[in-house]
Amino acid sequence: MSKLPRVAVLGATGAVGQEFIRLFEERDFQFASLKLLASKRSAGKKMMVKGKEYTVEEAKPESFENIDIALFAGGSISKTLAPEAAKRGAVVIDNSSTFRMDPEVPLVIPEINPEDIAKHKGIIANPNCSTIIMLMALKPIYDISRIKRIIVSTYQAVSGAGKDGIDELLDEASAIAKGETYEPKILPSASLPKHYQIAYNVIPQIDVFLDNEYTKEEMKMVNETHKIFHDDTIAITPTAVRVPVIRSHAESIYIETERPLSTDEVKKAVQGFKGAVLVDDIKNMVYPMPLDTSNKTDVAVGRIRKDLYCKNGINLWVCGDQIRKGAALNALQIAEYMMNHDMI
Amino acid sequence: MSKLPRVAVLGATGAVGQEFIRLFEERDFQFASLKLLASKRSAGKKMMVKGKEYTVEEAKPESFENIDIALFAGGSISKTLAPEAAKRGAVVIDNSSTFRMDPEVPLVIPEINPEDIAKHKGIIANPNCSTIIMLMALKPIYDISRIKRIIVSTYQAVSGAGKDGIDELLDEASAIAKGETYEPKILPSASLPKHYQIAYNVIPQIDVFLDNEYTKEEMKMVNETHKIFHDDTIAITPTAVRVPVIRSHAESIYIETERPLSTDEVKKAVQGFKGAVLVDDIKNMVYPMPLDTSNKTDVAVGRIRKDLYCKNGINLWVCGDQIRKGAALNALQIAEYMMNHDMI
Repeated sequence: MSKLPRVAVLGATGAVGQEFIRLFEERDFQFASLKLLASKRSAGKKMMVKGKEYTVEEAKPESFENIDIALFAGGSISKTLAPEAAKRGAVVIDNSSTFRMDPEVPLVIPEINPEDIAKHKGIIANPNCSTIIMLMALKPIYDISRIKRIIVSTYQAVSGAGKDGIDELLDEASAIAKGETYEPKILPSASLPKHYQIAYNVIPQIDVFLDNEYTKEEMKMVNETHKIFHDDTIAITPTAVRVPVIRSHAESIYIETERPLSTDEVKKAVQGFKGAVLVDDIKNMVYPMPLDTSNKTDVAVGRIRKDLYCKNGINLWVCGDQIRKGAALNALQIAEYMMNHDMI
Repeated sequence: MSKLPRVAVLGATGAVGQEFIRLFEERDFQFASLKLLASKRSAGKKMMVKGKEYTVEEAKPESFENIDIALFAGGSISKTLAPEAAKRGAVVIDNSSTFRMDPEVPLVIPEINPEDIAKHKGIIANPNCSTIIMLMALKPIYDISRIKRIIVSTYQAVSGAGKDGIDELLDEASAIAKGETYEPKILPSASLPKHYQIAYNVIPQIDVFLDNEYTKEEMKMVNETHKIFHDDTIAITPTAVRVPVIRSHAESIYIETERPLSTDEVKKAVQGFKGAVLVDDIKNMVYPMPLDTSNKTDVAVGRIRKDLYCKNGINLWVCGDQIRKGAALNALQIAEYMMNHDMI
């Protein structure tokens, strides 16, 4: 890269937006200029980034004039503003689900399919958090033997519903402790007609139900996996569940591979894969847990064991930070990849 | 039954013991006499049962003289006291795992295999909570087409670790709310060398690890299912996980049946099965949740949907009260069955 990029963050005040800012500092991400954008409601707010104060501006199409990289934190606003930003010459890295399945838009996990980045036409989509966390564990295995079958049940943190989701869980727990009542208004999803308590509960619905009786969240895990792996033949069975955890997702994953793999082979493959970390020492009660992977960069993989009945079956337990690798970090890694490969 | 039974409850002061007492009142369970037994530590404690005060006595072999039904709440004490009680003529209904796989001991869910009760030689074993809750959902399906394959991931409440488990979750949440620290000492299991926070966390270990890298809890789901269904050929893949929920377990279950079933067939079968209740109306966001099944008798079954790839595959989501149908209620139903069939 010859020049440092001019960067904009859309949705700077939300959970993912704030994570972008934390990562700018942590990774010493370099930019020529930075613009923090949000809805009208948050405009005027001051935020510190790398020791400098920035004022949040209201996001408008013209906000993206003279921007090289636009990091979109997610939400329905992407639909209108991403094309506007792209039209003005910015590369949009979009965390919403809007463009993920668009054949013109690459869907990228930089450790898995960085070669797709070059095909972009102004917008690059960041995959769904559950998909990223699952595939960071499965890619090293897929590389030693194709995966034919995935049956996955998720244990997803409330951060997937944004800052409001985190606040709701903590407010509920605190109200219950005081013997007070609390009226849920966010989970499973703010836009739905009913809301359920998540504290001391588990909700088997994330996002809306589709005609096939799976939720949109579950179908993201199917469709996005096919697109990222460039393999539509993988049979995927997802169940997406919200649990009272703050910011790290867990997933119980059963896979069937083309040839039988030993657990040693799988462990070695995971160990050798950048972005994944093997956390698997059951003799010492060591396995991934959401509390341990919160605010961590790597996706943790453990409880790797052969299926008891199917010789090609392997079970694993995976945890990863939803806001970090599941959202902001993955998007920022796409930007970094482009910068390092003179694509900006 | 000609005469009312003389009943003893062992472990009366624990979570399951207290549930026995609640169920005696709720179901108007009739007995000629009642003895409440516990460890030395709890002896002398007063407890109200059906409006009458009882004093807890220390459990000894001779406590079971002149007892017809001995309800054992669980724990390692069963190993020594169950044979002593049986020797003295009591029928022991034991909630511990000690005798479950003993070929001389029937393992019974009264709605599923009541015919096994008659084979007892003084001890009848109550299955593990996760097994009971899973099989209450699967039995009606098994009856219309044999189940060949089960892949299950559990979301288990802390009540499985007893009253201490519940207290630990609540104490942790309250300490965190006040910004205080709390040193976990119960979960995953009091007897293990390490303990982990369960509040806002998920722990992929219940009970100890075995040589095959599955936990004892997971293997209970395999072995007990085979014994209760009298079918060793079912291929079962379990992952048992503790979640911060108080007293109701949830399970994400994938099954493959011998012939392809429609979701309507499955729903009808579940609806017609006593002890299970269909909670499945996704259009109105109706599905089982642990908060809704706590303190409820029936096991709730929902999110019944065809697998996307395997025509014989069905997915379901099941919730049931761990202390109730998962333990005390199932044991009491065994006693009631015996009383109604002149077996006591």
